[in-house]
Amino acid sequence: VGPGASSLWKSKSTFTSFGVFFLQMGWGDLGVFGEPSKETPNLDQMASEGMLFLDFYTASPLCSPSRAALLTGRLPVRNGFYTTNAHARNAYTPQDIVGGIPDSELLLPELLKKAGYVNKIIGKWHLGHRPQFHPLKHGFDEWFGSPNCHFGPFDNRALPNIPVYRDWEMIGRYYEDFKIDHETGEANLTQIYLQEALDFISKQQASQQPFFLYWAIDATHAPVYASKCFLGTSQRGLYGDAVREIDDSVGKILKHLRQLGISENTFVFFTSDNGAALISAPKQGGSNGRFLCGKQTTFEGGMREPAIAWWPGHIPAGGVSHQLGSVMDLFTTSLSLAGLQPPGDRQIDGVDLLPAILQGKLIDRPIFYYRGNEMMAVRIGLYKAHYWTWSNSWEEYSKGIDFCPGQNVSGVTTHTQEEHTTLPLVFHLGRDPGEKYPLSFASDEYQRAMEQISFVAQQHKATMVPGEPQLNVCDKAVMNWSPPGCEKLGKCLTPPKSDPKKCFWPH
Amino acid sequence: VGPGASSLWKSKSTFTSFGVFFLQMGWGDLGVFGEPSKETPNLDQMASEGMLFLDFYTASPLCSPSRAALLTGRLPVRNGFYTTNAHARNAYTPQDIVGGIPDSELLLPELLKKAGYVNKIIGKWHLGHRPQFHPLKHGFDEWFGSPNCHFGPFDNRALPNIPVYRDWEMIGRYYEDFKIDHETGEANLTQIYLQEALDFISKQQASQQPFFLYWAIDATHAPVYASKCFLGTSQRGLYGDAVREIDDSVGKILKHLRQLGISENTFVFFTSDNGAALISAPKQGGSNGRFLCGKQTTFEGGMREPAIAWWPGHIPAGGVSHQLGSVMDLFTTSLSLAGLQPPGDRQIDGVDLLPAILQGKLIDRPIFYYRGNEMMAVRIGLYKAHYWTWSNSWEEYSKGIDFCPGQNVSGVTTHTQEEHTTLPLVFHLGRDPGEKYPLSFASDEYQRAMEQISFVAQQHKATMVPGEPQLNVCDKAVMNWSPPGCEKLGKCLTPPKSDPKKCFWPH
Repeated sequence: VGPGASSLWKSKSTFTSFGVFFLQMGWGDLGVFGEPSKETPNLDQMASEGMLFLDFYTASPLCSPSRAALLTGRLPVRNGFYTTNAHARNAYTPQDIVGGIPDSELLLPELLKKAGYVNKIIGKWHLGHRPQFHPLKHGFDEWFGSPNCHFGPFDNRALPNIPVYRDWEMIGRYYEDFKIDHETGEANLTQIYLQEALDFISKQQASQQPFFLYWAIDATHAPVYASKCFLGTSQRGLYGDAVREIDDSVGKILKHLRQLGISENTFVFFTSDNGAALISAPKQGGSNGRFLCGKQTTFEGGMREPAIAWWPGHIPAGGVSHQLGSVMDLFTTSLSLAGLQPPGDRQIDGVDLLPAILQGKLIDRPIFYYRGNEMMAVRIGLYKAHYWTWSNSWEEYSKGIDFCPGQNVSGVTTHTQEEHTTLPLVFHLGRDPGEKYPLSFASDEYQRAMEQISFVAQQHKATMVPGEPQLNVCDKAVMNWSPPGCEKLGKCLTPPKSDPKKCFWPH
Repeated sequence: VGPGASSLWKSKSTFTSFGVFFLQMGWGDLGVFGEPSKETPNLDQMASEGMLFLDFYTASPLCSPSRAALLTGRLPVRNGFYTTNAHARNAYTPQDIVGGIPDSELLLPELLKKAGYVNKIIGKWHLGHRPQFHPLKHGFDEWFGSPNCHFGPFDNRALPNIPVYRDWEMIGRYYEDFKIDHETGEANLTQIYLQEALDFISKQQASQQPFFLYWAIDATHAPVYASKCFLGTSQRGLYGDAVREIDDSVGKILKHLRQLGISENTFVFFTSDNGAALISAPKQGGSNGRFLCGKQTTFEGGMREPAIAWWPGHIPAGGVSHQLGSVMDLFTTSLSLAGLQPPGDRQIDGVDLLPAILQGKLIDRPIFYYRGNEMMAVRIGLYKAHYWTWSNSWEEYSKGIDFCPGQNVSGVTTHTQEEHTTLPLVFHLGRDPGEKYPLSFASDEYQRAMEQISFVAQQHKATMVPGEPQLNVCDKAVMNWSPPGCEKLGKCLTPPKSDPKKCFWPH
């Protein structure tokens, strides 16, 4: 990520970075991670040419906080992407959210800009849709995509359809100008996102500019969609069609880098923002392999992610790493590649993965599993200690909202928030990746594991300075009624009167 | 498997076959199938050099019947490896079983012998331990291994320790002469089995003899064991240590074939006799990936198996097949390779997989899931219809015997035998490999799937002629008290008086 040299690699005339980061795809969705249909030949090939991370995590079991963490290198509880409206609640940025990414946060593209990078986000931003949160105010030079999830269809009365932006202004709205057929699942958006990526890369290569591309596509998020030529091609149904199209697109982007002769100057990382949303299964939900539960939970299914690093000529082909990694590490690692230091005036949670990627070293570091304002679990080595367990409330569960369909581990997948802070539940993730068999509290193994974990957890809690929570207040007036550019298109809508309220976060 | 020519491949001066077939390893136990520790580099390499089967099944959710099916090409209900003592019960060949493989069955080695093959079994036979069932009476020329599972320790009073045979005679007993340390799990048996395999291959190559090697090792069956240099090397604990040693051994055998210059003449198939025994998890049980339940059940976790075909120069490297396959196909496929016809006087359930393996064709064929004397389910294409569901009885379950730990799919993983013969539960295994979401009975998709399946199921049942059940009668007098050769070793024990009884099969 930058023409500057780091001690770990020889600098090239141009050094470029391309980050693939897409949503709602689970650990088990790739052939290389054991998906039984094995329909991701391009991603599998990417892994065989690069390095596969088996123990890689997101920073939150859902979208907005983990995206904020990726771009800031900091836990959501630090960068403000959490709520204090209730204990241990997942919160994100729906249209009526008032908050967003604070100006005080330093985002990866802001820092890379100083090293001469051109930065583009393609796809879902999700760090706030009000003017002050616009990605071009936070370091990006270009944007094609939407500020929120493509939920819908909306009637443009109670809720406006989500806008699609090109840079500063909207160029249309979902369902109006960017169609998704709800009957068939057909939409050509991934093809548009692909073309945007190819064009941007070509342009940067032509002008010899180093670049950072954040490809944040959304085809595998409900409502799931795929282009016509991918519809019906997967054994897995529509969700699989979407995965195939993404796989095909990644293949085309990597091929493009090779054809332009810049693959050896381009560090590419593929991962996901949260585990597969099992609530959308089987029609629109992915797979977390044999891990427990999915999106919204701090079990492995909610936060362990597929992850592949690709950089021909630098990363040894076919590498497999057990390094504990986090999306926040992509912040620090990218800065390191660009020859930049991470900001020294704040706590950064990401670590520089280059020693693990280039030299096969294992860096000792913990993984913290947060749900909103609560540290639910900690992993060190192969041991994971749950300080709190919760899937969702009985009330939500009784409505059919099930984050662990077909799974039930007594005392673990609880429907009340269970506190285990004095005697955490500990699992050995090597023998028991599915988190089914807590270690006996009386065992020596438990004692040894907890000695290590307790120290790290206490340190972490004692030194934690939470940021101002951004996801507490909701107001229908702040929705995407009249985004910049709406006048030119005749697509401005009239907002209702402001009526700020505490957001309701049931999970 | 033979010097004769088939139309599908060019015959060589010697053509040899080597079948790896080992027990209790689940679909999800290999790195290439998504095991999170990814500790099977040799098997993964074997897959990348050969063909990976993603939809491959055993013929029974437990050991003896599926081994009988492998060697006869026939369902256990035909070859007699089932019980009628109770409905839909799993039965096998413990020491007190009176029955075994009937003389009327034609085993693969018996047939291959006619084409000049030398046949060896290394490891667990499990088709009956009384004299008339000895493997050398059923086509094998050599044997090194045991007739039954290596359960123990026994005190040689109530139960004799299991003997280990070399060819016709015992050469010792488990726990006495062949140690397994129950404290540490240490045993060097896999190394012995490996050396036996390497020596046999060398000998056959030296004498230019085509061979059939059935490597039926048992390190991953409880009590799980590994050699000293593999102990503690796996993230997964002792079970993983055993898997690593098997992986290493397979790598050494394949390397040996290459070094002898016969790899292009040797067809190798790797698979398992049943799904991972989740009842032994987490310490001694493997993984069935995201499939439902495990050994003893007719859910995917009980019967879908890892499967790799390897034959350099013939099978395209890196192939992936969705051909529905069965261990019984190895019978028919091996005969085809040897230029032999399957017996024409009986129903053979295995099909010749060579068109799928060599030409990438998909052969249309059903998979039948039996539990004892009952056809529990049928798969055609991606649809699986359950005519009966059962995990185990409430009584067994209440004792802590759980074949689906942490899993509970309402109306599916039932603890009573539930009949669905009039309206089967149907799953789409592409969208829903975990069998969690039965199709709606009212849907068009259900109707279309069942039209196809009903026809095949009715045909199958209407033409089924069950064999004489071999697993009905147990008698302590028939145990391995005085196996042939015991006199020389001073290891003969006195059997109790004969007292034949109906065997009790609770599952």
